[in-house]
Amino acid sequence: MLVNQLGEEALIGRMRDIFAPTSGGVPLAIGDDAAVMTIPEDRQAVWTTDLVLEGVHFERSWLTPRDLGRRTLAVNLSDLAAMGAEPMSALFSLACSGEEKVEILLNVCHGLAEMALEEGTAVVGGDTSGSGAGLVLSVAAVGTVPEGRAVSRSGASVGDTIYVTAYPGKAAAGYKLLMAGQGEESAALCRAFIAPAPRLAAGKALAEMGVGAMIDLSDGLARDLRHICAESGAGAEISMQRMPIDPELSRIADQQGWSVEELILGGGEDYELLFTAGEELASGIAALSRELDLQISAIGEIWEAGSGVMLIGLNGASKPLGIKGFDHFHADAG
Amino acid sequence: MLVNQLGEEALIGRMRDIFAPTSGGVPLAIGDDAAVMTIPEDRQAVWTTDLVLEGVHFERSWLTPRDLGRRTLAVNLSDLAAMGAEPMSALFSLACSGEEKVEILLNVCHGLAEMALEEGTAVVGGDTSGSGAGLVLSVAAVGTVPEGRAVSRSGASVGDTIYVTAYPGKAAAGYKLLMAGQGEESAALCRAFIAPAPRLAAGKALAEMGVGAMIDLSDGLARDLRHICAESGAGAEISMQRMPIDPELSRIADQQGWSVEELILGGGEDYELLFTAGEELASGIAALSRELDLQISAIGEIWEAGSGVMLIGLNGASKPLGIKGFDHFHADAG
Repeated sequence: MLVNQLGEEALIGRMRDIFAPTSGGVPLAIGDDAAVMTIPEDRQAVWTTDLVLEGVHFERSWLTPRDLGRRTLAVNLSDLAAMGAEPMSALFSLACSGEEKVEILLNVCHGLAEMALEEGTAVVGGDTSGSGAGLVLSVAAVGTVPEGRAVSRSGASVGDTIYVTAYPGKAAAGYKLLMAGQGEESAALCRAFIAPAPRLAAGKALAEMGVGAMIDLSDGLARDLRHICAESGAGAEISMQRMPIDPELSRIADQQGWSVEELILGGGEDYELLFTAGEELASGIAALSRELDLQISAIGEIWEAGSGVMLIGLNGASKPLGIKGFDHFHADAG
Repeated sequence: MLVNQLGEEALIGRMRDIFAPTSGGVPLAIGDDAAVMTIPEDRQAVWTTDLVLEGVHFERSWLTPRDLGRRTLAVNLSDLAAMGAEPMSALFSLACSGEEKVEILLNVCHGLAEMALEEGTAVVGGDTSGSGAGLVLSVAAVGTVPEGRAVSRSGASVGDTIYVTAYPGKAAAGYKLLMAGQGEESAALCRAFIAPAPRLAAGKALAEMGVGAMIDLSDGLARDLRHICAESGAGAEISMQRMPIDPELSRIADQQGWSVEELILGGGEDYELLFTAGEELASGIAALSRELDLQISAIGEIWEAGSGVMLIGLNGASKPLGIKGFDHFHADAG
């Protein structure tokens, strides 16, 4: 059955059934003008939103509807992770032409509901609309942090070590493979793009430790490091010699003639955490890495503002870190 | 200058400047992964979101960019009004092709910022993206209510009087005029569609009085009354003889051969409040109407569920209230 045969109210009813199990603790959820949240005392709310458009952020041939739903919530949860927040609830808006199969849209919802359950959050409302151009998804997510403990981008201090979780660049390589119709060359890299894991446990633990600044890698490591430097009024130096390089990423980059450095520094949508911390937190971070079974690599340090943002290349030479990364309005910026 | 000449980061910088004056009280706003909010003790957060798409909800020729910005925030604030909430902050996402003039997008932001200032709220974050098909706007808004005092759709009781603010149907008539390229026939009706006023003061006061159920008129009075009846497990009767009818609406309906009844009951996007209240609140509601200089009309009453949802027509005859109103996926539903 197509969406325009089912109608909007019936679709909302079906969506409500899918999201109901996740929203048990919410005083008032889907089916009213707005959803109600109780923020615990001594905690602050942290909130973020992302728009996801067919033809801009994804093509339907790249991923299943369920993966699309999971990913759309995951990228929002990643922003909460970067603040050190625990997710609480989410709103989900969906626009479609009406010519889609109902099953496809419901599977997007199932993906969202799955991710919500896995990460301890709930989809509690949203909006539906017609669309003249493919699927448009929007999620807003709220989390909470202990009062005054949200980790901003502006908290980096001179001398802080710069760390990154896991292996940046994989998602960008997967995206390039999917764009080129060569997804079969590396399932692992494609999954890095399609199914990013929000680093909620790491973000929360790092916030509790009192790390300096934190950001999730959505615009590319170079650009996101510059965000931290700009907001913190600081410079930085990172080294490709200290960068964690995924072997599969090396293999595919060699095969395709791509630059590993460009993929790691310029590629976006990794949803890994980039953060800074003083020397006194080094052993705690190492312990967290073991506890979560998550690679956390020291890749550089924060400098004074006047020093600029520098990169030591694989050959040991130092140069200014170019501003790379994704710009939605500059097709050649990546 | 076009958006794709300016680039995404510079655009975000300009947007941040526009929204900065509204976000003074927010601990952390635009420029981080997420915005931080402090919800006062003894209050709950209430939140809602709306997607607004060019070609679906508006055409650029109908309204100025500034009006578009104002309206996009207003329709969200209207949902907060219907809960009895005071607005606190909002997130704004914008997708565009990049071929737009920067000035147009900044004027959309100015409109949002104006409406935010007027209504005591702030735009504290959001998202920007490319779009394959015109402007896509998404706003999420958070407000607060005293704990346990949010007015749901489910609070209607048998015997409650049904009230509506101002004059429903005007926005639908304005929309039809704009669609037909006849906007010049009635500036007042077009403004009712283009520049709806969120009924925040009324919503808050009605919540404090303890009204039963409340909803804002976005899907059309008939459909929105059915939402209240469905969520409250109740029936209802409303009368066209008690309905407030705007003289300008009558004039244009006569001129165009449109049914006033259909415009009032089926037309959406009024963003007036439809609510129910017991007899004991009648004098308080009358006083509020005078205080706010806002027409509030008693148009019917809540019945037991088995009685259905009935309409007394202008001729005095009673019939079941047809389900009218806007369905994004049924072109002929309106």
